[in-house]
Amino acid sequence: MSGPPLPNEFELIARYFAPLSSAFAGAYGLLDDAAVLSPSPGNELVVKTDAIVAEVDFPPDMRADLIARKALRVNLSDLAAKGAHPRAYLVDLVLPKSVDEAWIADFATGLERDQAAYGVHLIGGDLSSTSGPVTVAVCALGEAPVGRIIRRGGAQPGDVIFVTGTIGDAALGLSVIRGELPGIDEPCAAFLKDRYELPRPRVGLGPKLIGLATAGIDVSDGLIADLRHLCAVSRLSGIIRASSVPLSIAARSVVGGDTRRLATALTGGDDYEILFTAPEAKANQIRELSQSCDVRITAVGRVVEPSAAEGSRVIVLDEHERPLVLAAEGWIHFGREMPSTGSA
Amino acid sequence: MSGPPLPNEFELIARYFAPLSSAFAGAYGLLDDAAVLSPSPGNELVVKTDAIVAEVDFPPDMRADLIARKALRVNLSDLAAKGAHPRAYLVDLVLPKSVDEAWIADFATGLERDQAAYGVHLIGGDLSSTSGPVTVAVCALGEAPVGRIIRRGGAQPGDVIFVTGTIGDAALGLSVIRGELPGIDEPCAAFLKDRYELPRPRVGLGPKLIGLATAGIDVSDGLIADLRHLCAVSRLSGIIRASSVPLSIAARSVVGGDTRRLATALTGGDDYEILFTAPEAKANQIRELSQSCDVRITAVGRVVEPSAAEGSRVIVLDEHERPLVLAAEGWIHFGREMPSTGSA
Repeated sequence: MSGPPLPNEFELIARYFAPLSSAFAGAYGLLDDAAVLSPSPGNELVVKTDAIVAEVDFPPDMRADLIARKALRVNLSDLAAKGAHPRAYLVDLVLPKSVDEAWIADFATGLERDQAAYGVHLIGGDLSSTSGPVTVAVCALGEAPVGRIIRRGGAQPGDVIFVTGTIGDAALGLSVIRGELPGIDEPCAAFLKDRYELPRPRVGLGPKLIGLATAGIDVSDGLIADLRHLCAVSRLSGIIRASSVPLSIAARSVVGGDTRRLATALTGGDDYEILFTAPEAKANQIRELSQSCDVRITAVGRVVEPSAAEGSRVIVLDEHERPLVLAAEGWIHFGREMPSTGSA
Repeated sequence: MSGPPLPNEFELIARYFAPLSSAFAGAYGLLDDAAVLSPSPGNELVVKTDAIVAEVDFPPDMRADLIARKALRVNLSDLAAKGAHPRAYLVDLVLPKSVDEAWIADFATGLERDQAAYGVHLIGGDLSSTSGPVTVAVCALGEAPVGRIIRRGGAQPGDVIFVTGTIGDAALGLSVIRGELPGIDEPCAAFLKDRYELPRPRVGLGPKLIGLATAGIDVSDGLIADLRHLCAVSRLSGIIRASSVPLSIAARSVVGGDTRRLATALTGGDDYEILFTAPEAKANQIRELSQSCDVRITAVGRVVEPSAAEGSRVIVLDEHERPLVLAAEGWIHFGREMPSTGSA
């Protein structure tokens, strides 16, 4: 599959990838052409695929183990937001000829670490060569009780909008990597950069939201954009209070009063937190879940019936209930009528 | 996800890809973040992924509808060789900025045609941009009776080696495309080229081999290489007769007595036929299956206990039972002791 420095693909698979399949009987040690699996009784399989590409989704010089873990985790995040337990995954690894065996060893080490962390197993894949950049497509398989996954479209008028963890760290981390935040202190820079490079999918929490959440989505495109997706499918509007959006200490320190940086945080994406809606009546249970899972869960707003004239939209309010609008200079007050929140 | 000529990815998905999911309830119209599916009672899911990359797996100027169909079919071929009925698939489509909306429309049209042909449904995917060539990763999901898929490792000593269809057309078709076969007549050239561009996975036949075949693999790396894979996992050796390998009329006309071209046919790959083993006692049932499915099935050799000294290997014999060896000039007689067949 590749240039002189690499053994052939069968040797690479035997050496680095087959061991990652050894605990999953239906993977047949990657010695066959397909894997088999069945959902546990009462469950159905939940399947998701997402690819990441060098230069677009990660810096071309990012460490191979981090690339592997990011590729896997962005998919596990989607499963978590649907309430699914992850079980297995497949990887298509498309590599330029410049990649050497040490790179592949690092990549496999990254997968191995995350398999241990998340209880998933490699059950198939493909190695290909390319004249282009490193490209990693993962297909993740999980399971959830039949008919119970948390959809985008189930939000009900009056439901509270919640979000896990903190928002904006990854987007600000990318700004750090790009050198756009000179002068921020080193611990903050390191924290934010790490949050960009290595998502923390809410794999433990997600399945516990079944029965509580009416709708859910993982925050990958950005808090506002993903809330817009959820609202569009639920045929509702979302109203959130900017000051309620949970920011990490590092993000708060970087954002300060800078409306452009606030805009980066709220719209930048790559958070891989879960945005979900739930009835007010479930608030106590959600608080208990937050404590038992040790995951911060914050109410940031509500979904409401959309106005007949304007349809589904997302409105961001300041602390005085005044609508903000996204402009080149960040979230600003809109001086006239009710704004439509601009797109990111 | 891309340059000015393209609408954003959500519009592209709604316009071209969501309609391909409409008949599969668990795909939720591609409006959610994951799809759900369950195997039918008594069955388990069978899953396979393979990626194809421009310049490596297909010519960069190949029509988008053919790229789509090839990407899907190479995966359906693996499912067929395992005896699985295909049900659904996901696509990661990684595109350079030069791709326009008409290309995507053609790509989707290709998928639509093959969905109708093979009864499969798009249930998820991802659109990404790249600075490199068009890359398409497909993950295909099928189902088969629990514990019954046709593995690589089940061949028994004495089993007959069978292959479906004809071998070598695709490899010779690639030679046509590369201009390496000047002077061949136009109908032959067109037939071979088409066989390279558009695999015919044995989707109808494959599941009917359960209960007949002891081991199976689809021919993608080449007849000899894939037989070697099957034999290695089955811990047996394979002996095939070169003159028994079924060639199409076009391939026979091109190969003639040219040993290099015969080598291309036997080792070139991309056939997407099924290579399988079965006991002699099943020969009549296999003949009936060939007739009922209207698919040629040819006995090409046998698997035997490997010699203790040399382990699993594949031997190709001429019509006088003399071993041939692959050299630069094609399959030739090996003048000394028993040869090891060279690698492709």
